[in-house]
Amino acid sequence: MRLNTPTVKIRGVKLGGNNPIVIQSMTNTDTADAKKTAAQCIELYEAGSELVRITVDNEDSAAAVPEIRRILDAKGYKDLPLVGDFHFIGHDLLKRYPDCAKTLDKYRLNPGNVGFGKSRDENFEELIKLAIKYKKPVRIGGNWGSLDQELLTKLMDKNPDEDIRIKTLVKSTLDSAKLAEKLGLKHDKIVLSVKVSDVQELIKAHELLIKKMGKKPYVLHLGLTEAGSGLQGVVSSSAALAILLQKGIGDTIRISITPQNNEPRIREVQACKHLLQSLDLRQFQPKIVSCPGCGRTNNLLFQKIVKEVNHYVDKNNLEPINIAIMGCIVNGPGESRHADIALHLPGKKEAGIVSVYAKGKFYKTLQGESITKEFIEILNLLYPPK
Amino acid sequence: MRLNTPTVKIRGVKLGGNNPIVIQSMTNTDTADAKKTAAQCIELYEAGSELVRITVDNEDSAAAVPEIRRILDAKGYKDLPLVGDFHFIGHDLLKRYPDCAKTLDKYRLNPGNVGFGKSRDENFEELIKLAIKYKKPVRIGGNWGSLDQELLTKLMDKNPDEDIRIKTLVKSTLDSAKLAEKLGLKHDKIVLSVKVSDVQELIKAHELLIKKMGKKPYVLHLGLTEAGSGLQGVVSSSAALAILLQKGIGDTIRISITPQNNEPRIREVQACKHLLQSLDLRQFQPKIVSCPGCGRTNNLLFQKIVKEVNHYVDKNNLEPINIAIMGCIVNGPGESRHADIALHLPGKKEAGIVSVYAKGKFYKTLQGESITKEFIEILNLLYPPK
Repeated sequence: MRLNTPTVKIRGVKLGGNNPIVIQSMTNTDTADAKKTAAQCIELYEAGSELVRITVDNEDSAAAVPEIRRILDAKGYKDLPLVGDFHFIGHDLLKRYPDCAKTLDKYRLNPGNVGFGKSRDENFEELIKLAIKYKKPVRIGGNWGSLDQELLTKLMDKNPDEDIRIKTLVKSTLDSAKLAEKLGLKHDKIVLSVKVSDVQELIKAHELLIKKMGKKPYVLHLGLTEAGSGLQGVVSSSAALAILLQKGIGDTIRISITPQNNEPRIREVQACKHLLQSLDLRQFQPKIVSCPGCGRTNNLLFQKIVKEVNHYVDKNNLEPINIAIMGCIVNGPGESRHADIALHLPGKKEAGIVSVYAKGKFYKTLQGESITKEFIEILNLLYPPK
Repeated sequence: MRLNTPTVKIRGVKLGGNNPIVIQSMTNTDTADAKKTAAQCIELYEAGSELVRITVDNEDSAAAVPEIRRILDAKGYKDLPLVGDFHFIGHDLLKRYPDCAKTLDKYRLNPGNVGFGKSRDENFEELIKLAIKYKKPVRIGGNWGSLDQELLTKLMDKNPDEDIRIKTLVKSTLDSAKLAEKLGLKHDKIVLSVKVSDVQELIKAHELLIKKMGKKPYVLHLGLTEAGSGLQGVVSSSAALAILLQKGIGDTIRISITPQNNEPRIREVQACKHLLQSLDLRQFQPKIVSCPGCGRTNNLLFQKIVKEVNHYVDKNNLEPINIAIMGCIVNGPGESRHADIALHLPGKKEAGIVSVYAKGKFYKTLQGESITKEFIEILNLLYPPK
C-alpha cells in the first residue's frame, strides 16, 4: 500500500498521492553556461527525466536561469519543469535574482546548510517566504553528508554512544518542514528527502521518518546518495529503492551514478525507468525477457539476436509488450507462450531454426542470416511503433 | 530474520542456516570442450562465484566432466565446487556416465522436464537414487518457463480463471522435494528454487513457497530468470533479489544476465557481490562512496579520480573499508568524516586543491597532476593490500 501523501504540482507534473512515481535527474554542466545546461536538460527530459534539477550555486548561475528557460521554451520544451538546487546562499540568490526565483518551478534547499545559529532561522524564513511569494513548491532535502552541525552536536551530547546521524537527519528535515508550514507554506507545496549513502541506513532513515510523520505524511523524494559508479552504483541504488518502493514509500526517485568512461548522463534516467518498470509501477517500453545463455546455447547467434532486438526496441516507440528471446528449448517454449511475441533457438547441436511465437501461440519458424530482420518485421506487423 | 533453513554442504561450501549467502554462476561454453569449460569455471570462481554450474546436456558433455575436474585440480582449484545442470535426460546420463555422476558435487534437476506420466516418476526416482548412492546434494530447480505440463493442465481445469503458473511452479517443486525425501534423500541434501522472469511474480512465488514449506523450510536458491541484458538485467535482478533477501529469504543467489557487446561472463558475479555487499550481507572489497557530480563540480577532474581509485580497488585485494570521493563541499566533508579514507574537491571555481581525510579526521591537502597517485599512496600506507 502506497503511503497516503498529498499531491504536489510542479509545472505540469504531479508528485505524490496516487500519481505515478516520477523520475528525476540533475544536470552536471555549469549552470552559468545556459546553452550547455539547456541542452543537457533536454537530453535528460527526452530520456525520461520528468523533472530536471540544476544547481544554482552562485550569481552567474542565478543570472543564467531565465536564459535557460528561454532556450527550453524556444525549442518546444515549455512543459519541462526546472528545479533549482540551493546550498548555503539560496536565500541570498533568490532574493537578489527575482527572475531566477520566478522562473524556477521548484526550489530545493538543504536544511543542513542554510546557516548557523540565529542566521539559520532567518535565512530559512527568507527562503520559505520567497517560495510562498512566488507560489513555488519546495523540497527540503536532507543529506547525512551535510547535517545541521548544531543539532548533531546537541543530540550527540544527549546520546554519546549511538550513531546519531540518522536521527539528526530525520529531525532536521522534519523540523524544517514544520517550520515552513508554520511560516505559511502549504503541506502540498512541500517535498521531503532524507538521503544516505548506505542501503540499510537509508531504510532505517525512512522507517524513522515515516513513524515521525504520522498520519499526515509529506510527499517523498527517494535516492541513495553518493551511490558510486558502474555496477556498484546501479546495483546498490536498485536494491535500496526497490525495497522502499515495494513498501509503498516514495513519490519521485533519482538514481545517482558517477559517470564512468564518458557514459551519458542519461544512464541514471534509464536505470530509473528499468527499476519502476520491473516493479510494475510504470510502463515505458517493451520488456525483453532473455536468458543468460549457457552451454546448451548457440551463444554467438543468440547474443546477436538479443542485441539487435534490444537495439530496435530502444530506437522505436513501442507499446510496453513482453518480448522473449530464449536460447534453447528448456525454458524457451514456456517463456514464448507467455510473451506477446517471442522466439527461441533450438540448441547448439541443431540447425539454426528458430521458433517464433505470437500472442501465446506458435507462429512460424525462421532460419538463416536474416532471422532478426524477419522477426522485427513480424514485430512491426503485430505491434507497429507509435 | 533469515529463514531457518538447514545447512547443505557442497564440496567445501555450506549453503543455508546462518552461513553467508553464497554466490553462484553458470558457464556458457560447450561443456564437451573440457579445456574451455574449465577455463571459464576458473574465471568465474576467481571473480567470486563460489559454486560453478555447467550444463550436462548430452553424452559428450557427460563424458567431459571428469576431464574438467582433472584440469581444475591440476591448476590448483581442488576446492571449486562443480554443479551439473540436467534437463530431460539427466537420469539417463548420470546412470550411463558414473564418472560424471561421481565427479559432480551437486546435481540440478528440473521438476518440469524429467519426463511425462509414468516415466516422470521413474526418471525422477532414478535421479534421486543416484544422488543418494553418490552422496550428492540436489537442487530441485523449478522454472515457470518449463512447468510440468500435466500438473499445469490439471490445476488449470480446476481454476480456469486464475493465472495458475505460480501455483504449478511451487507445487511441482515442493511435491518433487517431498518425493525425494520419501525416496531417502535427506532434507539437508536438498536445495529448492522457483524461478520466474517477472519481479512481482517472483515475490509472489516465494511468498507461496514459504507458506507451503511451513516450519521445515528447504535451503533456497534465488534468481530472477531470463532477466535480460544490459541495465534491464542488472536493475531488475537487483530489485527482485534485494526485496527477497531483505525479508531473510535466500541462501544462494545467481544473477542471470544475457552478455552484451562481449562483456565478460563474470559481470553477473560482480553484480552479485555488489548486491550482497550493499545489503550488508557480505563484505568483499572497499565500498566507494562517490556523488554523481553536478554543476558545482569540476567534473573532468572528479570523474578521473573516481575512475582511477575504482581501478586501483578492483585490481588490489584490500580490506572492505569505506572510501569516499566527493565532488564538492556540500556533502564532501560529511561523507569524508564518516569514511575510513576520503577526499573531496572544493568546487569548480576554486583551485584544484583537494582535502584528504583519514579515519574521520582531516589528513592533508593535495593538488596538481598527481592527486590520485598521492591519494593511493596514503591509502596504501594506511590500508595496505593483503
